[in-house]
Amino acid sequence: MILVKLGGSVITDKAKLRTFKRSSCDRLAKELGRANAPLAIVHGAGSFGHIEAKKHNLHKGFTTKSQLHHVAAVQRDVRELNLGVLASLIDNHIRAVAVPPASAAKFRSGVIRQFDPDAFGRMFDLGLTPVSFGDVVPDESMGFSICSGDLMMEAIAKAFHPRLVVFCADVDGVYDADPKRNRKAQLIPELDKSRLAGLERTESANADVTGSIYGKVERMLAIAKHCEKCMIVNGNVPGRLGKAVSGLDVVSTVVVPG
Amino acid sequence: MILVKLGGSVITDKAKLRTFKRSSCDRLAKELGRANAPLAIVHGAGSFGHIEAKKHNLHKGFTTKSQLHHVAAVQRDVRELNLGVLASLIDNHIRAVAVPPASAAKFRSGVIRQFDPDAFGRMFDLGLTPVSFGDVVPDESMGFSICSGDLMMEAIAKAFHPRLVVFCADVDGVYDADPKRNRKAQLIPELDKSRLAGLERTESANADVTGSIYGKVERMLAIAKHCEKCMIVNGNVPGRLGKAVSGLDVVSTVVVPG
Repeated sequence: MILVKLGGSVITDKAKLRTFKRSSCDRLAKELGRANAPLAIVHGAGSFGHIEAKKHNLHKGFTTKSQLHHVAAVQRDVRELNLGVLASLIDNHIRAVAVPPASAAKFRSGVIRQFDPDAFGRMFDLGLTPVSFGDVVPDESMGFSICSGDLMMEAIAKAFHPRLVVFCADVDGVYDADPKRNRKAQLIPELDKSRLAGLERTESANADVTGSIYGKVERMLAIAKHCEKCMIVNGNVPGRLGKAVSGLDVVSTVVVPG
Repeated sequence: MILVKLGGSVITDKAKLRTFKRSSCDRLAKELGRANAPLAIVHGAGSFGHIEAKKHNLHKGFTTKSQLHHVAAVQRDVRELNLGVLASLIDNHIRAVAVPPASAAKFRSGVIRQFDPDAFGRMFDLGLTPVSFGDVVPDESMGFSICSGDLMMEAIAKAFHPRLVVFCADVDGVYDADPKRNRKAQLIPELDKSRLAGLERTESANADVTGSIYGKVERMLAIAKHCEKCMIVNGNVPGRLGKAVSGLDVVSTVVVPG
């Protein structure tokens, strides 16, 4: 199995509320058609989730009743994005079906307390492609919390041990310095825990309630234990995702455990 | 708790593929604002589900691989309708969140094998209004099957024993003859099993993969055992749903068990 994350920064304009990049998603859907194994897909919430979630402190859990309207609204919005992604995949011959996080997992304190692989397994068995996403979820201790797409990636990887895990992002991979500020920044082709610890930390300019690239790589290190290969590729460069999922060499950062 | 079914024949044009009647739904959402207890809502699939499901025999379960594209497409379509309903409810101050059937239940042979009330209970506890819907679902013996909105209505009623269950349909209730063919047909204000057995059976003109009004009333008889009052009201007549959920007398058929 190949597990692919379509980053919120690739399929949405993260700075503009609820802006789905349908043509980018269509191109990526076509590239996914080159996969040489069954697919599972997770997408981020991008500007359908993070902006409003941050504004109303949804990542902090229940603090005031006035948040509840926004819990409902953000859940609706991320499902609108999910429908866009499903339509794009289906129109490109991938039999995609939605598996919202809360239909596969129970949450406590912002982490998964219990995961039901069957929610995905039933779809695989039928020959369908499950598509999960970042969402606001009921949380046993916080009332509600944010389940990031990356959290779902880890749960799926742990349960199904995919051959390949691809994080499709808006960067070529991880650099040894911030490439936006340092022209000499070099892409790191292979990254492990000790190399990560030595990297300079920077924060993203746009709203994100689920952590920086640093947090993402830490999650990838955990995922790398459950798969043969775990990599970041740039989804904005045509062809790279297609190369990755068909097993060809491609510009990327491969994250290795240990 | 009050459990309301928004019939597919009320919120969609059942004869025209994927036609959401947003203004009807908005009016009903406003009427639901008069409810004097927490709400749970289920809606039918209407023309977002039945037409394509019937065309590709999805109600018969897996028979050929070519159905799988349509399983994905119909699931996507009913979620599009669900998003429309959620938007309508949220815009009318109901904090509505989606609970797809497969996130609360497991299915075998077209019936529910296991139901997890928590999927709804967690939403109630937060002060949110769960909204479920008719859907194509994974099925342990058939591959996939249709879970009708009415099947979800029964499962929710069984688990939560609502005070009131309202089926919002495109008719005033059940008649002693077909009112479209017999001008002397009389509305039956109260219907039980023996009265139902004596009624003439007619079939609906539009596609429906989940049974006729006769089947619906049989389901309502089962539901009536789990609630104080179970009724059909006409959702096309302004004000009736609002009267029903606020506890006022209204033109309807009340279905009583036994």
